[in-house]
Amino acid sequence: MKRVAVILSGAGVYDGSEIHEAVLSLLALDRAGAKVQCFAPDQPQHHVINHLSGEVMHETRNVLVEAARIARGAIKPLSQARPEDFDAAVLPGGFGAAKNLCDFAFKGAECTVNAELQRFLAALAEARKPVGFICIAPAMIPRIYGKGAECTIGTDAQTAAALEAMGAVHQACPVNGVVVDATRRCLSTPAYMLAGSIKEAAEGIDALVAKVLALA
Amino acid sequence: MKRVAVILSGAGVYDGSEIHEAVLSLLALDRAGAKVQCFAPDQPQHHVINHLSGEVMHETRNVLVEAARIARGAIKPLSQARPEDFDAAVLPGGFGAAKNLCDFAFKGAECTVNAELQRFLAALAEARKPVGFICIAPAMIPRIYGKGAECTIGTDAQTAAALEAMGAVHQACPVNGVVVDATRRCLSTPAYMLAGSIKEAAEGIDALVAKVLALA
Repeated sequence: MKRVAVILSGAGVYDGSEIHEAVLSLLALDRAGAKVQCFAPDQPQHHVINHLSGEVMHETRNVLVEAARIARGAIKPLSQARPEDFDAAVLPGGFGAAKNLCDFAFKGAECTVNAELQRFLAALAEARKPVGFICIAPAMIPRIYGKGAECTIGTDAQTAAALEAMGAVHQACPVNGVVVDATRRCLSTPAYMLAGSIKEAAEGIDALVAKVLALA
Repeated sequence: MKRVAVILSGAGVYDGSEIHEAVLSLLALDRAGAKVQCFAPDQPQHHVINHLSGEVMHETRNVLVEAARIARGAIKPLSQARPEDFDAAVLPGGFGAAKNLCDFAFKGAECTVNAELQRFLAALAEARKPVGFICIAPAMIPRIYGKGAECTIGTDAQTAAALEAMGAVHQACPVNGVVVDATRRCLSTPAYMLAGSIKEAAEGIDALVAKVLALA
């Protein structure tokens, strides 16, 4: 049984994990027989967005506590994620990946990755354990894997240019496709960077999870 | 194209819609080619639960605003749900269904259903349009369909007894099964009342959605 860490960043597309992408990842992993453990950083969210109006709400929420909603409580602080306990990892997208797991949403090509996550993912990379990045989460790939890593965020030219400025080799990819850097064992799929509906997001995520597990 | 209303009650198993059940419902409906519109009541949640600790958080959240996280913002107030615009409805579970859509979690067999929801579902029942109830949401069936309605909440004896006290005819049902009251066109499946994992919840929800759409 493959052991997979799923890294969440809150619960909601505008300030946390994209909920559909997170649930579709958990579904694909469970159907494939993987043993999943969810993690999230125990820290305040960058901010809280009213998902009805799109406006900032003047309150504070914790990334781990909100991510626990997606995990039905079965989640641990990212600081407890030990690379030796896992065969692979999957990172759903949503703005939380670019606001709470790194600061790509604000700093673009100047972004840095959460230190606990950088440590965990760098250790998986060093051990050649596969990691799947969904939606905007591939923005972290150049910081983890260094120059030359192949990845996709779909087809958005501006976002792709920011990744290339960090040293990534961006490949345009349809919503049902997966870009695999076989050398580095990092994989990516666009999901809601391109998806027009949940079934489209599911196609790419199902394909990504299958490839991640095949490499694990 | 079948038009289906999905009624949400927040975002999180302990105080809102069970997120997996809601997303799995949206996935099954989208894959079947249905046109979905999400709704939720524009009212305060009964309370807010920290999904990591299980404790009450001393803050206020709005059911519609939190449900918008699951719907990626594409949601309307339940007061705007017009029965004539839909061929069917689906109600995911989670404690929100029993705390925000009705008060079954607190009053058991003495519960009442949110007035807007009662009006909407009673009109669908009158028009013989099918409605699918997931997990604990079937607790509302006796209030909508009256005495003799067949339904399931899985196998929990105490919950089943409360439904029977309201006049329902409870049938024990496995996690991958669906109880269909063909006369009233109300359908139910246990999902996380019984599911040990997300793929088990998906089995029952996929089956429920297929049967709802077949009757629509």
